[in-house]
Amino acid sequence: MNGSYHILVLNGPNLNMTGLREPHIYGSSTLDDINSALNDAAAALGISLDFCQSNHEGILIDRLHEAPMQYDGVILNAGALTHYSYALRDAIASIPLPVVEVHMSNIHRREEFRHTSVIAPVCVGSIAGFGSFSYHLALAALMERFKQD
Amino acid sequence: MNGSYHILVLNGPNLNMTGLREPHIYGSSTLDDINSALNDAAAALGISLDFCQSNHEGILIDRLHEAPMQYDGVILNAGALTHYSYALRDAIASIPLPVVEVHMSNIHRREEFRHTSVIAPVCVGSIAGFGSFSYHLALAALMERFKQD
Amino acid sequence: MNGSYHILVLNGPNLNMTGLREPHIYGSSTLDDINSALNDAAAALGISLDFCQSNHEGILIDRLHEAPMQYDGVILNAGALTHYSYALRDAIASIPLPVVEVHMSNIHRREEFRHTSVIAPVCVGSIAGFGSFSYHLALAALMERFKQD
Amino acid sequence: MNGSYHILVLNGPNLNMTGLREPHIYGSSTLDDINSALNDAAAALGISLDFCQSNHEGILIDRLHEAPMQYDGVILNAGALTHYSYALRDAIASIPLPVVEVHMSNIHRREEFRHTSVIAPVCVGSIAGFGSFSYHLALAALMERFKQD
Amino acid sequence: MNGSYHILVLNGPNLNMTGLREPHIYGSSTLDDINSALNDAAAALGISLDFCQSNHEGILIDRLHEAPMQYDGVILNAGALTHYSYALRDAIASIPLPVVEVHMSNIHRREEFRHTSVIAPVCVGSIAGFGSFSYHLALAALMERFKQD
Amino acid sequence: MNGSYHILVLNGPNLNMTGLREPHIYGSSTLDDINSALNDAAAALGISLDFCQSNHEGILIDRLHEAPMQYDGVILNAGALTHYSYALRDAIASIPLPVVEVHMSNIHRREEFRHTSVIAPVCVGSIAGFGSFSYHLALAALMERFKQD
Amino acid sequence: MNGSYHILVLNGPNLNMTGLREPHIYGSSTLDDINSALNDAAAALGISLDFCQSNHEGILIDRLHEAPMQYDGVILNAGALTHYSYALRDAIASIPLPVVEVHMSNIHRREEFRHTSVIAPVCVGSIAGFGSFSYHLALAALMERFKQD
Amino acid sequence: MNGSYHILVLNGPNLNMTGLREPHIYGSSTLDDINSALNDAAAALGISLDFCQSNHEGILIDRLHEAPMQYDGVILNAGALTHYSYALRDAIASIPLPVVEVHMSNIHRREEFRHTSVIAPVCVGSIAGFGSFSYHLALAALMERFKQD
Amino acid sequence: MNGSYHILVLNGPNLNMTGLREPHIYGSSTLDDINSALNDAAAALGISLDFCQSNHEGILIDRLHEAPMQYDGVILNAGALTHYSYALRDAIASIPLPVVEVHMSNIHRREEFRHTSVIAPVCVGSIAGFGSFSYHLALAALMERFKQD
Amino acid sequence: MNGSYHILVLNGPNLNMTGLREPHIYGSSTLDDINSALNDAAAALGISLDFCQSNHEGILIDRLHEAPMQYDGVILNAGALTHYSYALRDAIASIPLPVVEVHMSNIHRREEFRHTSVIAPVCVGSIAGFGSFSYHLALAALMERFKQD
Amino acid sequence: MNGSYHILVLNGPNLNMTGLREPHIYGSSTLDDINSALNDAAAALGISLDFCQSNHEGILIDRLHEAPMQYDGVILNAGALTHYSYALRDAIASIPLPVVEVHMSNIHRREEFRHTSVIAPVCVGSIAGFGSFSYHLALAALMERFKQD
Amino acid sequence: MNGSYHILVLNGPNLNMTGLREPHIYGSSTLDDINSALNDAAAALGISLDFCQSNHEGILIDRLHEAPMQYDGVILNAGALTHYSYALRDAIASIPLPVVEVHMSNIHRREEFRHTSVIAPVCVGSIAGFGSFSYHLALAALMERFKQD
Repeated sequence: MNGSYHILVLNGPNLNMTGLREPHIYGSSTLDDINSALNDAAAALGISLDFCQSNHEGILIDRLHEAPMQYDGVILNAGALTHYSYALRDAIASIPLPVVEVHMSNIHRREEFRHTSVIAPVCVGSIAGFGSFSYHLALAALMERFKQD
Repeated sequence: MNGSYHILVLNGPNLNMTGLREPHIYGSSTLDDINSALNDAAAALGISLDFCQSNHEGILIDRLHEAPMQYDGVILNAGALTHYSYALRDAIASIPLPVVEVHMSNIHRREEFRHTSVIAPVCVGSIAGFGSFSYHLALAALMERFKQD
Repeated sequence: MNGSYHILVLNGPNLNMTGLREPHIYGSSTLDDINSALNDAAAALGISLDFCQSNHEGILIDRLHEAPMQYDGVILNAGALTHYSYALRDAIASIPLPVVEVHMSNIHRREEFRHTSVIAPVCVGSIAGFGSFSYHLALAALMERFKQD
Repeated sequence: MNGSYHILVLNGPNLNMTGLREPHIYGSSTLDDINSALNDAAAALGISLDFCQSNHEGILIDRLHEAPMQYDGVILNAGALTHYSYALRDAIASIPLPVVEVHMSNIHRREEFRHTSVIAPVCVGSIAGFGSFSYHLALAALMERFKQD
Repeated sequence: MNGSYHILVLNGPNLNMTGLREPHIYGSSTLDDINSALNDAAAALGISLDFCQSNHEGILIDRLHEAPMQYDGVILNAGALTHYSYALRDAIASIPLPVVEVHMSNIHRREEFRHTSVIAPVCVGSIAGFGSFSYHLALAALMERFKQD
Repeated sequence: MNGSYHILVLNGPNLNMTGLREPHIYGSSTLDDINSALNDAAAALGISLDFCQSNHEGILIDRLHEAPMQYDGVILNAGALTHYSYALRDAIASIPLPVVEVHMSNIHRREEFRHTSVIAPVCVGSIAGFGSFSYHLALAALMERFKQD
Repeated sequence: MNGSYHILVLNGPNLNMTGLREPHIYGSSTLDDINSALNDAAAALGISLDFCQSNHEGILIDRLHEAPMQYDGVILNAGALTHYSYALRDAIASIPLPVVEVHMSNIHRREEFRHTSVIAPVCVGSIAGFGSFSYHLALAALMERFKQD
Repeated sequence: MNGSYHILVLNGPNLNMTGLREPHIYGSSTLDDINSALNDAAAALGISLDFCQSNHEGILIDRLHEAPMQYDGVILNAGALTHYSYALRDAIASIPLPVVEVHMSNIHRREEFRHTSVIAPVCVGSIAGFGSFSYHLALAALMERFKQD
Repeated sequence: MNGSYHILVLNGPNLNMTGLREPHIYGSSTLDDINSALNDAAAALGISLDFCQSNHEGILIDRLHEAPMQYDGVILNAGALTHYSYALRDAIASIPLPVVEVHMSNIHRREEFRHTSVIAPVCVGSIAGFGSFSYHLALAALMERFKQD
Repeated sequence: MNGSYHILVLNGPNLNMTGLREPHIYGSSTLDDINSALNDAAAALGISLDFCQSNHEGILIDRLHEAPMQYDGVILNAGALTHYSYALRDAIASIPLPVVEVHMSNIHRREEFRHTSVIAPVCVGSIAGFGSFSYHLALAALMERFKQD
Repeated sequence: MNGSYHILVLNGPNLNMTGLREPHIYGSSTLDDINSALNDAAAALGISLDFCQSNHEGILIDRLHEAPMQYDGVILNAGALTHYSYALRDAIASIPLPVVEVHMSNIHRREEFRHTSVIAPVCVGSIAGFGSFSYHLALAALMERFKQD
Repeated sequence: MNGSYHILVLNGPNLNMTGLREPHIYGSSTLDDINSALNDAAAALGISLDFCQSNHEGILIDRLHEAPMQYDGVILNAGALTHYSYALRDAIASIPLPVVEVHMSNIHRREEFRHTSVIAPVCVGSIAGFGSFSYHLALAALMERFKQD
């Protein structure tokens, strides 16, 4: 694959509240702040990003289905859907793009139910615990993967 | 806090079928009947209520996110989402309003899966088993709470 | 049913320590304070209350057995017996009175073992998390029920 | 062993409500009716019975401890304590008398929690499901045992 | 029902080894000894017994199916099939005769897997722990039941 | 019931990807191919079908609620919602129409989480493992059912 | 494959009692009635059926082993063996014929133990809940499969 | 804290049978022997002890509630209540005194149910397995603690 | 013990299909091939073998019961009965002969349900994973044991 | 046994960090401080102690194996190996010395995984929750035991 | 913190076999190749790395304990110890350095036992599934963290 | 493969105590006795053996890694590491040699935790219960395997 890359940054339920909610877990930057910084970092690498946040499982699935027509990869923070949405899991499995699972908090330090990810087995890999920098690491991970293709 | 209170009454999946379905569990009043009686009771107390019912988890989450701008508290009957929607749970946790969990039936008398509420730990309190009067008790509970603030 | 109502307010193990113990969970009012306020509220409604607290499972069972001869309903805070006393459960099931389960704290926010109530399936309904006002809600719930009979 | 036998018939929580409660499970005879018929049957065999019912776990334990001084065996219907009272279990294990576990209903047809008996492993044997005749079978079982000693 | 009764005594796998095997659990009487004593006791009551032992689950099921044409009740010691044969359970449920579950040993004192009986919920009642006298108690239980019909 | 029948064929999350995804499991026909063949078969029987696919749990619930006004029965392939959507289960239970559960793949050969269906207990019956022919079998099952009404 | 097809219809334990037992679950037709109707339907399609019912796991296994010499497919209602007979499972896996799992009742509405099928993973597919018509659907499913070979 | 200390030695169900029961586990000294030796040891240290044994959970709770008015610490052997009495646990948590959990036997060598202590998390510490000397160690532990205050 | 030894080689359900089924697991030798080679090896050691294969649990049990009259030991491959037949377990426990458990495949590499053997605790020892040579190892194990007696 | 006693004080993984790590759990004394104070106390009793700390499971096992040649007893704080090292358990069981299990913190108040000790069943007894004084209590427990030998 | 950073790259059991073992999971680069590439990347950033691999849990713990004296952070691939070594977990918790958990493979796609990490809750964050690039991401994550301090 | 074979006999924790410990389980021969007899048997077959015993998981892993350079196969008795050392499991999986799992005792007769082997799935096969002769059987198993290569 050559040319520049297009990546979809997909955020699930409640991530629109980031920065407004539980700052000791997620920090005080808003999702717009995080996206903006990520966009700058991507631009510097010649990558274009699109951002989508939805609280609707169905919209996230729709976006994943359409992604192969526009993108080379997906960075996905599925929020709490991570822990029970087998439908989201099937959507990831149904597309040929690499999807990287991202969490800002260390989910293994939190409630028991957050220790299980039903989407992890169908993602390329997982990154958790580095705050908003988790997205940057996911971006780097996708870039490395593109290089190897 | 002074002046009159605004409360959102939020009903989840299938509650629009109330009165049409399994009347031995939920009684024969429709959701409109229930809302109307609740509205009358609230009006008598100088409280204004808004009602919202949706079968979409995403819409319920959206309404919770917007609630702090308009309301002083939420009465929430999450229907079957009560038992698995960690996304709804996170939505409740992400807002500073008191949310009271309500069920018309005694969920502990029914199927095993209804004995667990994933939203209870982030609600102020729970009321279950009193038919449509459960909503009235939730209203009273919120009023008491407002008084103490 | 006509005339005024008689209700038994039954409190289980350790509730005599209320106000003396873990005030961040139960508040600083003593059980006497709580009973007194509840009594006032009931009197205003023309209801007479009797109060009983015991740390003995057997005494609570005895009082439940005798209740139908004197009372129209029971408000029961079973304390930690809530979580394992199947004997108390059978006692509730053995009498024709409505019994309302009450907890001052939100038991779903506390230790795992407090998330299960073995008495809930045989009570009319459950109210938890509203501090001492939980008792007042239970009173209202019983009144509503009497009205419908 | 010769001479006539003395047997303690010990009934646990809520069995005083027998005949008043859930007759489709326990029949409509009261505990007094049941005891009286059992006493007649025992008398015909030259056996004397003492009857004790208590809703207090502690009293049941006390009676078991004292039993070896007065009795040759115990017939025990522990009610719902059957399913959780390890203290009662230890009391049975601490005395040298044969104790026969009795249930009127078929506990395996009822709620899940009634399928486990924590006292069964320290009793001589168990009899369940034959209504008040379960006591008569227990009497016969003890008699057979005495014959073999 | 009048006239004399006919009862099938059905023994499952390995019970033909009784008296030859683990006498500290089952005693030293053989199954023939046990059957013979039981037959004598039944004859004294004017009851005729038939005996069947098989190590084949299928034969036990066949015998249960045919039983209603010849017998008024069944005494069943299903041996280890007790713990897993849902087919035997269905066979018991498919016939209108009372079936009494019998075990010579106290199954609750032995290995964990012997603590669950999959046939208990469809039997009239259960008797365990009284050695070969368990069969005599089952006979008495059936007689009592016939008297009440 | 007379006249011709109207049936709703409802497909859940990710089934729009059929034929594009994991053809070794679902075959290479697209959902349109499958619907078209099913429509032909139904037309030959004088039945009219409507088709709906959605990745949104809420839309599936809405369609089920409205179904009784237009249809005589529902064929439902709930995709991965099968395994956790108690809200969908309640929606099925809330309508008086027969709903037949369908899966193209043999869900018991796949991942552990696919072995449990939370909607099966409220459906008329289930058909799984016959590829797109599973829908045809469901159609035949509904027809047979209509004949018997 | 050409010419007409031969199919073995294999019924397991207690299915010989169909129509005699629990008609609210299985209907009032006997197994002979069901077989006869199925035979007629098959004959109309030019298919010959053989029928076998046995309460013996071993006989069912023997018949499965011999089936490839005589039949093109098997319709199997394994009765309660469905839930624990790994030996039956291995027998199905050991033959190259398509085996369709059939249940008359909706096993997911019944006792917990009936929700697991140990044979489903080695069958082609499963059909449950359509009464005796389940067999007809299985026949159609096999026919479709033969067509595709 | 200075002056002499007062400690309550609280023994739960069945400990009055010590020395009479299962001497291979508990030794042959009676509870009086044990208490007397402990009293001598305490006296030598200038500590006064009070002893209480009860088979009643309620009495143990009552004694714990009153303890702060008379004692500086509690040595508690809760017997089998250790394994299920959440009411006792709450009683310990409700008082500001240090409570030391004591067992004479090594509970981890015995039945599975004895491996869990529901009171351990609210006690200062636990000592098990040293026979009656476990009480002496608990006494030393409390003394050390008093020294540090 | 002197003279030559007689050993029963007992094979359970589906082992008659060996060599015909799943050769990647069991190899392509038939059971006759395996038995023949084992017989040759035994003959060379002066041991006589009898072979029995049955798909009927009951026949396997019958053969085990009769074994002590003819044999000095048993080599048992119980097939899938290994995982659930407590009746077979009791049969092994009921005879005084050494029984060696044999599996051709490494059962720990296969499905979860094959990881548990309910017969292992009553066998002398277990050998698994060496194909048909597992039987030869079992033979050697029995010979060694005979030498030590 | 006469003369003075020699005791090995064995500390497992991470205990060398004591005093440097989580002082709110373990206090601020270092392991050297603790050992020194313990040595003084032992010397006053005429007992000689040897101290060993290792982060290597293998070294702890080696030291236990050699202990009987030099010591009369062992005080063991196995650190986190307590919760999973069955090898350490076997090492304790393989030597004839009394081993006392010690924990400074109350392990029952901490994470779930710390509530299980796999070594407790093979130790003489356990002491937990008294800070560094737990070692002193263990010393006293061993002395008492020596006295009784 | 200023100046250049020193980071310890710590690899646990079997990682020395990387490139020699299961290349479909770990790729064909050896650990030396991976370390060398990582070292180059770090050098370009002015970071110095030290590498340590050991198959000994004890050595890994020792290295973690000493790390604060020499390093600013740790990149840890604990191999299979990830899944059971609570001792390693305690070692991580006992030091004030940030530790990043790394896995080359996507552990959630592999065997069940690899889905649980006992060290994750005490690490800063986790990265899994990106082959040897996982180490590079961990390096970037630590750098980001240093920047923020 | 030709020439003579070299086999590593690897023994894990506590096996050096064999013959000194619990002789009713392991017999009274020491590990040296066992090795010596095994060596003699191997020599007679022209096989050379090396023996290694260690209580250190890390050393066992190191030896397995080096084994392919010197040996044709491994006989491994992992002691209690069998039940939890996933690191040992990975070490076995990382080498191309056949490894045979050996236990002297019948691990299925002992404590629950000994019933699970985490290394069995990556070994060629398992042999347990034949005392020191288990090693001889493993030797024979490896020889047979070499013959077939």
